Amino acid sequence: MNKPYDLLTLGEVLLRLSPPTGERLTSGDMFQKYVGGAELNVASGVGLLGLRTGIITKLPQNALGIYARNTMRSYNVYDAFVSYDDDADARLGIYYYESGAYPKKPHVVYDRKYTSINKISLSDFTDDMYTAARCFHTSGITLALGPRCRETATEMIKQFKKQGTLISFDVNFRGNLWNSAQAKACIEEILPYVDIFFCSETTARMTFLKEGSLQEIMKSFTQEYPISIVASTQRIVHSPKSHTFGSILYHAGQDTYFEEEPYRSIDIVDRIGSGDAYISGILYGLLTDPDNYSRTLQFGNAVSAIKNTISGDMQATSLPEIEAIIHDHKNMGFQSEMNR
Amino acid sequence: MNKPYDLLTLGEVLLRLSPPTGERLTSGDMFQKYVGGAELNVASGVGLLGLRTGIITKLPQNALGIYARNTMRSYNVYDAFVSYDDDADARLGIYYYESGAYPKKPHVVYDRKYTSINKISLSDFTDDMYTAARCFHTSGITLALGPRCRETATEMIKQFKKQGTLISFDVNFRGNLWNSAQAKACIEEILPYVDIFFCSETTARMTFLKEGSLQEIMKSFTQEYPISIVASTQRIVHSPKSHTFGSILYHAGQDTYFEEEPYRSIDIVDRIGSGDAYISGILYGLLTDPDNYSRTLQFGNAVSAIKNTISGDMQATSLPEIEAIIHDHKNMGFQSEMNR
Amino acid sequence: MNKPYDLLTLGEVLLRLSPPTGERLTSGDMFQKYVGGAELNVASGVGLLGLRTGIITKLPQNALGIYARNTMRSYNVYDAFVSYDDDADARLGIYYYESGAYPKKPHVVYDRKYTSINKISLSDFTDDMYTAARCFHTSGITLALGPRCRETATEMIKQFKKQGTLISFDVNFRGNLWNSAQAKACIEEILPYVDIFFCSETTARMTFLKEGSLQEIMKSFTQEYPISIVASTQRIVHSPKSHTFGSILYHAGQDTYFEEEPYRSIDIVDRIGSGDAYISGILYGLLTDPDNYSRTLQFGNAVSAIKNTISGDMQATSLPEIEAIIHDHKNMGFQSEMNR
Amino acid sequence: MNKPYDLLTLGEVLLRLSPPTGERLTSGDMFQKYVGGAELNVASGVGLLGLRTGIITKLPQNALGIYARNTMRSYNVYDAFVSYDDDADARLGIYYYESGAYPKKPHVVYDRKYTSINKISLSDFTDDMYTAARCFHTSGITLALGPRCRETATEMIKQFKKQGTLISFDVNFRGNLWNSAQAKACIEEILPYVDIFFCSETTARMTFLKEGSLQEIMKSFTQEYPISIVASTQRIVHSPKSHTFGSILYHAGQDTYFEEEPYRSIDIVDRIGSGDAYISGILYGLLTDPDNYSRTLQFGNAVSAIKNTISGDMQATSLPEIEAIIHDHKNMGFQSEMNR
Amino acid sequence: MNKPYDLLTLGEVLLRLSPPTGERLTSGDMFQKYVGGAELNVASGVGLLGLRTGIITKLPQNALGIYARNTMRSYNVYDAFVSYDDDADARLGIYYYESGAYPKKPHVVYDRKYTSINKISLSDFTDDMYTAARCFHTSGITLALGPRCRETATEMIKQFKKQGTLISFDVNFRGNLWNSAQAKACIEEILPYVDIFFCSETTARMTFLKEGSLQEIMKSFTQEYPISIVASTQRIVHSPKSHTFGSILYHAGQDTYFEEEPYRSIDIVDRIGSGDAYISGILYGLLTDPDNYSRTLQFGNAVSAIKNTISGDMQATSLPEIEAIIHDHKNMGFQSEMNR
Amino acid sequence: MNKPYDLLTLGEVLLRLSPPTGERLTSGDMFQKYVGGAELNVASGVGLLGLRTGIITKLPQNALGIYARNTMRSYNVYDAFVSYDDDADARLGIYYYESGAYPKKPHVVYDRKYTSINKISLSDFTDDMYTAARCFHTSGITLALGPRCRETATEMIKQFKKQGTLISFDVNFRGNLWNSAQAKACIEEILPYVDIFFCSETTARMTFLKEGSLQEIMKSFTQEYPISIVASTQRIVHSPKSHTFGSILYHAGQDTYFEEEPYRSIDIVDRIGSGDAYISGILYGLLTDPDNYSRTLQFGNAVSAIKNTISGDMQATSLPEIEAIIHDHKNMGFQSEMNR
Repeated sequence: MNKPYDLLTLGEVLLRLSPPTGERLTSGDMFQKYVGGAELNVASGVGLLGLRTGIITKLPQNALGIYARNTMRSYNVYDAFVSYDDDADARLGIYYYESGAYPKKPHVVYDRKYTSINKISLSDFTDDMYTAARCFHTSGITLALGPRCRETATEMIKQFKKQGTLISFDVNFRGNLWNSAQAKACIEEILPYVDIFFCSETTARMTFLKEGSLQEIMKSFTQEYPISIVASTQRIVHSPKSHTFGSILYHAGQDTYFEEEPYRSIDIVDRIGSGDAYISGILYGLLTDPDNYSRTLQFGNAVSAIKNTISGDMQATSLPEIEAIIHDHKNMGFQSEMNR
Repeated sequence: MNKPYDLLTLGEVLLRLSPPTGERLTSGDMFQKYVGGAELNVASGVGLLGLRTGIITKLPQNALGIYARNTMRSYNVYDAFVSYDDDADARLGIYYYESGAYPKKPHVVYDRKYTSINKISLSDFTDDMYTAARCFHTSGITLALGPRCRETATEMIKQFKKQGTLISFDVNFRGNLWNSAQAKACIEEILPYVDIFFCSETTARMTFLKEGSLQEIMKSFTQEYPISIVASTQRIVHSPKSHTFGSILYHAGQDTYFEEEPYRSIDIVDRIGSGDAYISGILYGLLTDPDNYSRTLQFGNAVSAIKNTISGDMQATSLPEIEAIIHDHKNMGFQSEMNR
Repeated sequence: MNKPYDLLTLGEVLLRLSPPTGERLTSGDMFQKYVGGAELNVASGVGLLGLRTGIITKLPQNALGIYARNTMRSYNVYDAFVSYDDDADARLGIYYYESGAYPKKPHVVYDRKYTSINKISLSDFTDDMYTAARCFHTSGITLALGPRCRETATEMIKQFKKQGTLISFDVNFRGNLWNSAQAKACIEEILPYVDIFFCSETTARMTFLKEGSLQEIMKSFTQEYPISIVASTQRIVHSPKSHTFGSILYHAGQDTYFEEEPYRSIDIVDRIGSGDAYISGILYGLLTDPDNYSRTLQFGNAVSAIKNTISGDMQATSLPEIEAIIHDHKNMGFQSEMNR
Repeated sequence: MNKPYDLLTLGEVLLRLSPPTGERLTSGDMFQKYVGGAELNVASGVGLLGLRTGIITKLPQNALGIYARNTMRSYNVYDAFVSYDDDADARLGIYYYESGAYPKKPHVVYDRKYTSINKISLSDFTDDMYTAARCFHTSGITLALGPRCRETATEMIKQFKKQGTLISFDVNFRGNLWNSAQAKACIEEILPYVDIFFCSETTARMTFLKEGSLQEIMKSFTQEYPISIVASTQRIVHSPKSHTFGSILYHAGQDTYFEEEPYRSIDIVDRIGSGDAYISGILYGLLTDPDNYSRTLQFGNAVSAIKNTISGDMQATSLPEIEAIIHDHKNMGFQSEMNR
Repeated sequence: MNKPYDLLTLGEVLLRLSPPTGERLTSGDMFQKYVGGAELNVASGVGLLGLRTGIITKLPQNALGIYARNTMRSYNVYDAFVSYDDDADARLGIYYYESGAYPKKPHVVYDRKYTSINKISLSDFTDDMYTAARCFHTSGITLALGPRCRETATEMIKQFKKQGTLISFDVNFRGNLWNSAQAKACIEEILPYVDIFFCSETTARMTFLKEGSLQEIMKSFTQEYPISIVASTQRIVHSPKSHTFGSILYHAGQDTYFEEEPYRSIDIVDRIGSGDAYISGILYGLLTDPDNYSRTLQFGNAVSAIKNTISGDMQATSLPEIEAIIHDHKNMGFQSEMNR
Repeated sequence: MNKPYDLLTLGEVLLRLSPPTGERLTSGDMFQKYVGGAELNVASGVGLLGLRTGIITKLPQNALGIYARNTMRSYNVYDAFVSYDDDADARLGIYYYESGAYPKKPHVVYDRKYTSINKISLSDFTDDMYTAARCFHTSGITLALGPRCRETATEMIKQFKKQGTLISFDVNFRGNLWNSAQAKACIEEILPYVDIFFCSETTARMTFLKEGSLQEIMKSFTQEYPISIVASTQRIVHSPKSHTFGSILYHAGQDTYFEEEPYRSIDIVDRIGSGDAYISGILYGLLTDPDNYSRTLQFGNAVSAIKNTISGDMQATSLPEIEAIIHDHKNMGFQSEMNR
């Protein structure tokens, strides 16, 4: 089964506007512009490592939409499944992001209501899309954007599943889009279709009202639903400029937990998208060496760790760089200070 | 009658995002950020020349609203009559602007729907506002934004008028906000309250369906309504980088037209706001030397001409600079190449 | 007693020129420009938290003076008491600042001689100024600038005191402006009028020749003079990029010392003005909840801590942000990693 | 015949490094980085107007090669036929470009020897490439780079021709790569395969030693070789910041010359690539409406004219923008000053 | 007579601070920093063309002085005769410069009082300096700075003259430093020592009260004083972005006037220093081919013309570039659009 | 023996291109440009501390060569012994450098083949060069560039040695230029002429196959060759943003090892050139106070430590700053937080 895409993701593409590091949203003459979005970040992360990925989304038919399209392409995400909105009020969602420095926290202002993604529908796409990918991924953000997105996402999950596509889902709970009860109810309808499930410990407890150890919680999802893999990141925020990052991956078939030493004291340059980068590492691992869960976990952790050191929402890394980081992290032999 | 403000204006405040000169909206890493808005530009123009001005508007209660407030203040516009919107979907309107170079035209993408100004109402302000200013100004843009803005603006015009405030109104027709018939119907309800009326020849013909010479058209407005002054700008666009600018001002009481030699081959740096700058020059003239219409016209033309040479929506000039430009324009004696 | 200003401060306004972070004064093509000054920073700090503040100063009547005025306004400091110097040699003081990175120290080059502030005199202002504020603040820097500033400051302190204004004074000893003996003699003439006194432990020992514990020293000032409150900051410089900051506040009436856990390992972005930010937090606390000294101390520490993370001399923060930082610092319940 | 690409081009991809406008190569702290190359510019020009295009080239297998690939993709050029050079001395060619201002001329320094393109060979590509495109384009620069490029290009032209592909060729004579005699000899071997031929009047006279009027010269090529279309640009350089641009297109089958009023006094922002943009407009016209040579000429002229107003080697325009420019150039009815 | 320097100049070195083009001094976050000064610009202009030059000046012994020294060196001016001022109030003079765009004029704010150059004295230098150069140049600015500079300059002129050094002097009248009567009296004491005299027509008439044609005026100086060469520039300011520049050179010995077609419609990028660049071209001509006055005039005009197209006070050109410009200006044969 | 230069170094000068901190080589619009090169960095380091230094190299005769020359001069390196390559393929070597942040390592891409330095020969220089300096320095990089450089360097070492010049040599092993065996063979031919030898512990073990303690290894070099001084740096890389740096210096005559407390937790801004800066500190020490090896070691460590905190390859420090750092490092008395 030779499908043209390894991965398709569904989600909103946003313009990110950030003041230069150390400056505030409330002053200054300049914004750095980026393109991001949880599911775009995942697609790009997998694409930059060498697989063929695309995004399913709806963009405004204007200069901002073209900017988003061009940028996605430069990050190795194909745009064959981008629908365009040519209404007069078509708009690209925006978020403003200011980085932190202890004790100042990173700060986000969202301006993502009434955006073109909210007009997406199944009829924007042809049916051959559902047979075009080995894996489909979306997140709770897409479900939370509004009823139109929720219906479309739900239906797409079912259609892709029907075609034998691996379904990957990240809870990605955002309290400013919906509340825990809404999220729980909606996601529980999705879970019967999900193969790979990403959920943080906090969200599992606060949104899904799970109890017990993290390991018990992870396993419980696979007991309640036909989920194969549950992955959960573990981040310790020492300060906005220093995090420690690791994760646990549980495989239901083997009933095994995979872990490794976390990346300690990561030098944070831009933390945005590092959760999505984790997912991209995991999916890359599963799509290239399906049964090697240790390697999959290592990819997830390494891609997330390095994303934190790179400006922008999308990790701009490459396979050789990730392999070198994994190699050094496993601490095998002489380590040079510099790649040259 | 010692009122605390010489001028209050009512209108939407927008964030302007522009790529560096020569770059496109569809590429690049950076936006220059500005604050503008037709009525803010007028208030600022008058304020920077030395009078006390304020704006009546509604801003989101977030970092972008604070940025707008701080910027307005630095351009000498007081913020005592700014109302804040603390809804979760509060938003500051945006427009994206890319400058032109022949044959590429300047390009604007608006993203100003669903903004906080659309929630403005009379109840946001106390009644002492109506006695606080010598002059009140707004434009057709405010009327066109939506029903809430239209009602509020109409009622404010009446309240200010009742308190003996000079009413200034700029048609400022924007085909992407409403059509000519809508504009005509709405504005004709306002005109009975207007003292100073700004209308371009094109708009007079296409929106108000006027015929005859420009002089006849200008006069006709004062015959149909109790308008004292009608001003009309005349711009010739040689290329996006070179304009010629002049204007005609008609005073009904004296039944006289005022004109001067236009500013020829202006070096355009940023054309946005030069129409608003013209209004600010006219209002400054009328408020400081009410019966000297020649001087008033000279201020209007000079402030507009120099605005074209300055980045951003608001003219960042000063009284001595404008006086020097008027002096040179009238060509009196030796002219230095440089101010030092 | 409804005074139009909560706080007026007296002091010099300076232009700060800094190379981009990591660059040196001795090379490069660019300076970042800022406006600062010990007393302006205090006024702005209080103003941005929501009170009405103004500065008493003298600026050159040129483009640099206008730049300083515009910037002050954007930082919520009113300019009604700014006097202008239109002499041919009018000048705005400058300081050049280069940030540090261990073992390179931050480096300052001053160019603040012969500046317009040195021409300030009582006759620049009308007498209603002295009844316009609830609190007046100045620092030892103003006294040290020269005889004209010293006389003017001394007389203003007396005039404000006479009108029942709270007098706040920061020693702010600068060895490059005067020596310890000069400072001691001059300040001891001021202290009989001071209500709120800011003095670091080092200065207390080296300039005022105090001995004993810091607590004893603080108390001694209130025994020798009718001072109500003495505040003293405690900064540990781990490296130019990491400080720990706390303070002690002594209230003479209650004979009580207030302290809290310091902010540890602050990520220093720009350390300049963090002492002034501390004062602004203390004054904000005293002016909004006069008898709550614990809260006042928390405000002082939090505003100073966050200032260190923001580029420029003036803290560009807001009341909600400071309250959130205080809340997190007191460690009450779940803490999000990010404000969104 | 449903081929996956409308156009494939063969040529070197270069890194362009330019000081900011007004700065010199010999000073300053910064280079703006761009990607360009005559044939890449043609592919991108056609791709941005909406057709599917790709480039055949060889890039170094390092960060610079990845940068070039990502950038090409963002300019709508596919990279399926990019071969990678992983030798230790693999290098991306560079040229340094400084813009002009009368009397300073634009200045180029080339550093494009020993680059990876010089290792390109037929064996880098599979045979299905030759059936993948409706049109193939290359230029004399590729022939001039060295023997390996010359052989590869010559053979590819033959292979593509054999598969019924339209062959487009631009002389693009560069005196620093070869001399006129070499160029003439080499290109005359290619011409029997060429369908669309681009040659400036100067080159026709100086390199091909043609005589007579430009019209006679153009026709003569079609008499000597089975060329269908000859196009020749006509540029008048008033100053480095103002050009006039037009062209003549000759169609041999109809024995007709097509011309239109040139674009006069174009505001030059970046002149590089405007010749390639012309070709992209012509090819777009031919590929979308093959028999409409007037429209084809209009596209060529308009795309070239607007390219001059855009920074970078590749025109970043779109079909609607070009259509609007053509419309205005033909001067049909009311023209707005701005697109909004 | 093999002297180590071809040219030494005496004058103040200044820091220039400019907002980015199109921005104002009164707003924005950034200054571009440059080093300039009339006599430094002359030295650098001659040095960059290939002769050995140095400057005689006094700099503050701080980071700004080091910045000035490093920059001078990078512009090929030796610093062996730089004296350093290590007083606490040592300062580098500053001027703020904002460029113009019609009708906005370029604007300069000077802050050059109390600078270190005002402490310069003969005792800062050893006597071998006077034998070290073939030519010595200074200008009226140095004389106007203050009594200390005036005495030092006057005495240096005499000392250099005594050693057979060619004395070059530029009036460079600045109304903000002294008045015409002062300038006339002071300069007339210098003229007996001057060999090469630069004076504009306006200054000749307004300061020296000359009458008659420009030719008569130029000649009159050589009749009253033992001056060999008088040069006078002729600039027409069409707008701040377009000048025409030419000059007349009179040689007393041959009683001949040298002129050439002026450079018309120069694209002005930065006009500052173009008068000094003219002098550097003239001095370069005289020092390399003393009797070829036509060539000397061509160098003067070409160096000045190109300076206008380059950011900063010092022309960053080279001998080949100037020779190419002269060649093109004389319009000899085919002219390429670009240097490559 | 009054030689005009204290130090001459021989080596390649490179252009360094770096994305802004936090950005990647593979994206972004901008490169920061620097000039560097191991031996240039050493010369500049010594020159900026106050001695007279020059570089022996070959640069392309184009704008890039002029840029390199101008920059070297601004860093106090004389260019009297720079030879120029005016071949059509003359090129300046380039390296691209991206900084690191844990776990992302700094990354270098070299593009330094076929550069002008490879054409250097003895005949480019006159024999008086060999008597012009007190000390001559080069490194293993120069030897490794190619046979032409190797021969020239070897011969120059002998010529300088013959004239009584101190010979300094840094192994500076680069595995991408040659292998350990090649390096060992070549360098062992040089060592009989070397007085001051710089070699890291790693290189001593891996390239020279030394065994035993570092002290034993250092001593062994002086036993096998007539080397007076061996210096070896000791760097601990905590993360790309935090290093600890110290060194050991062995003097054979005194048979003594010199060491001091290392600089711990240096805030790394730009690590490139810090090894060369170390050498410059050592050579400065030896050339100014030859027998004071403790002071020499302190200079080496301090100059290297501060280099890490400065952008660019060359340390832009000064003697007073280094003395202050040494003073603080020795922890003598009160330490201010800031230099002002």
